[in-house]
Amino acid sequence: MIVEIINTGSELMLGRVLNTHQQWLCRRLADLGHVVTRQVAIADEGQAIQSAVREALGRADVVITTGGLGPTSDDITRELIAELLGKKLIENKAVLAHIESFFAKRGRPRPIKTDVETFVPEGAEVFLNATGTAPGLAMKIPSASSQWLVMLPGPPRELRPMFDASVVPLLKREFTDEIFICRTLLTTGIGESRVQEMVEADLQPLVMRGLEVGYCARPGAVDVRLVACGATAEKLVGEAEAVVQRILGENIYGRDDEEIEQVVVKLLAQKKKTLAVAESCTGGLIASRITDVPGASEVFLGGVVSYANLAKEKLLSVPAETLRQHGAVSEAVAKAMALNVREKFGTDFAIAVTGIAGPGGGTDEKPVGTVFIALASAGGVAVKKFLNVWERATFKQVTATQALEWLRTVSA
Amino acid sequence: MIVEIINTGSELMLGRVLNTHQQWLCRRLADLGHVVTRQVAIADEGQAIQSAVREALGRADVVITTGGLGPTSDDITRELIAELLGKKLIENKAVLAHIESFFAKRGRPRPIKTDVETFVPEGAEVFLNATGTAPGLAMKIPSASSQWLVMLPGPPRELRPMFDASVVPLLKREFTDEIFICRTLLTTGIGESRVQEMVEADLQPLVMRGLEVGYCARPGAVDVRLVACGATAEKLVGEAEAVVQRILGENIYGRDDEEIEQVVVKLLAQKKKTLAVAESCTGGLIASRITDVPGASEVFLGGVVSYANLAKEKLLSVPAETLRQHGAVSEAVAKAMALNVREKFGTDFAIAVTGIAGPGGGTDEKPVGTVFIALASAGGVAVKKFLNVWERATFKQVTATQALEWLRTVSA
Repeated sequence: MIVEIINTGSELMLGRVLNTHQQWLCRRLADLGHVVTRQVAIADEGQAIQSAVREALGRADVVITTGGLGPTSDDITRELIAELLGKKLIENKAVLAHIESFFAKRGRPRPIKTDVETFVPEGAEVFLNATGTAPGLAMKIPSASSQWLVMLPGPPRELRPMFDASVVPLLKREFTDEIFICRTLLTTGIGESRVQEMVEADLQPLVMRGLEVGYCARPGAVDVRLVACGATAEKLVGEAEAVVQRILGENIYGRDDEEIEQVVVKLLAQKKKTLAVAESCTGGLIASRITDVPGASEVFLGGVVSYANLAKEKLLSVPAETLRQHGAVSEAVAKAMALNVREKFGTDFAIAVTGIAGPGGGTDEKPVGTVFIALASAGGVAVKKFLNVWERATFKQVTATQALEWLRTVSA
Repeated sequence: MIVEIINTGSELMLGRVLNTHQQWLCRRLADLGHVVTRQVAIADEGQAIQSAVREALGRADVVITTGGLGPTSDDITRELIAELLGKKLIENKAVLAHIESFFAKRGRPRPIKTDVETFVPEGAEVFLNATGTAPGLAMKIPSASSQWLVMLPGPPRELRPMFDASVVPLLKREFTDEIFICRTLLTTGIGESRVQEMVEADLQPLVMRGLEVGYCARPGAVDVRLVACGATAEKLVGEAEAVVQRILGENIYGRDDEEIEQVVVKLLAQKKKTLAVAESCTGGLIASRITDVPGASEVFLGGVVSYANLAKEKLLSVPAETLRQHGAVSEAVAKAMALNVREKFGTDFAIAVTGIAGPGGGTDEKPVGTVFIALASAGGVAVKKFLNVWERATFKQVTATQALEWLRTVSA
């Protein structure tokens, strides 16, 4: 089964918003055994939409469009596709009732603009929108084989539940799932070229049997991707995973969707250990990443964001003398932060970071990017020094990842 | 000038990574007056890459590819495009010297895998990679008009500086910048249909003169986009902005790239006011968003992430009795958190949030999504209650935005 995705939206072509649909839909479809072969993004413009849809229908069994179904004047996808396929738009009473009820529940009058959302192409399957107003639409295309065009609304909070509730059942009904295994091993601490050099000879026999291997470098991490299709897929990927585990073992922090913070929360929960954090240069990001994990409250008691020196003194009891003598970005201050936050929260572990995010604040001795991370536990406190030369947002992410990785190794 | 972008990468089609190139490149190109007309993503697969490039060259003046230039076995774009255009790959001494020096600086031997990066298509302009090893490449295509194919490396930290340093000058040299104005007014507190209903009649005369208007709904916000081209663009967009400002004034929190946290930091800095935060359900996200802003240290002293009740008691001195009587998610606790964190940090303003992120923890009286936000200042403390029914990550973002928006209005 060949699937293509078309994202419409002038805001995409102007770079006003990040297109998150591609990743989300590709991931969901891969889980069903269908790998998307092409993804196209175009403006809300008549000719561009119609030609992209026409071309995709010339190649794919299933074409999924996103966006352009809403109530405003730049939402034109429904009309353009109906025109392309020679279908009339007909008022749908179920959709009207659904939209009336949507606004009634919120105690607001239904805006007259939403009238347009109640008109759907004749013969279309209609997906009522559980989290918004515009319905999704699916149309069977008259062709030799089974071919479908699916239109989904643009807002992620509407598209995602609708895909799961309505598109997945449609695909299962109309197409056979294929066996397809994709496993990603997440490594940290080794560069991309070196990772491939270390594993490729040992993976080669499996590649000859149909395994596909991919590498993807991210800040502070390299993903090794193992893919196979067909009846032997599970076995092939399993063997490959064992090979990579044997060679890169220590450097593998997780697999597939796992974020390092999920691994840390899981490990700490298993061992019934608790955690607190003291953050300067990461400004709350470590705490925020940990609390993104459902169930984080089992292990994470809280933290202090001691951005100003005064906060390090008053909230974390770092002695003014230590700050003056060593500077806020120093081994001594990192240690004091970790020890004191551990004591204040009464946790098993505490992690503290202090560093220079930049763009300002660097010196010859401590250039922008200098970071000290301290880890305190019942056994005492240890410090590591890093030089993370990145722009501000990546600096924060990389530093948070290093802190979480250290926590992972001590809690494993 | 017509520009198309082609992102290659099997990891994109498997949904393993988020494609951030599209937004970044579209934004940069729009700033130069060039609106991208189509963006395509495909796997690292020979036929897919060659047919996508061939099709794009049939439509566009400039085609930009990303990815597939690195040292691992799935990096095949350079070879495939050289083959498509009938060019030989020739070793480039400058690239070799650059890569040797890249590894020498890091005290590591050059991996043999990087040999492949030193071979470039004959006649190509070479962009040395300031932050990595694989060079970028630009090739002039023999055709009636000026036509260019530009190949950029996949990692954002390599692509972005290379685009600014090398591709921008190439575009300025080969193509005339066009006058193109895109302004986005960022609103909060009104739904998308209602926003259009409020402004469209007054914008209509400007639309007749060539203004293009777009609307884009995001969680908690609606963007109004005003676009025009040509000699009158600046005037037309200026008039339109005045219309939208007059009608939606109070609800506009910023324009274009401005994040609400940037506006807050700017306003507080102007008034020389300081801020501290106490976060429960947002888990450090408010602090992290504020510290994403360069210069945040001028106004932001720090915060407490009081995730556990014990942390609210010990770090924020919320009385155990208040917690027991009202519950952690309550007006009384939010107030105590805000007042006490303000006092501890000695700031002008303090904001506190407590709520139920879910998926667990809801009751009939206080369902999942219930949030109390308190704002303390010299004048006392006030509380607002919200019901933010979203999945966990969006819940945190929406709640943080509400807190920041309140700070914006009081510091404006």
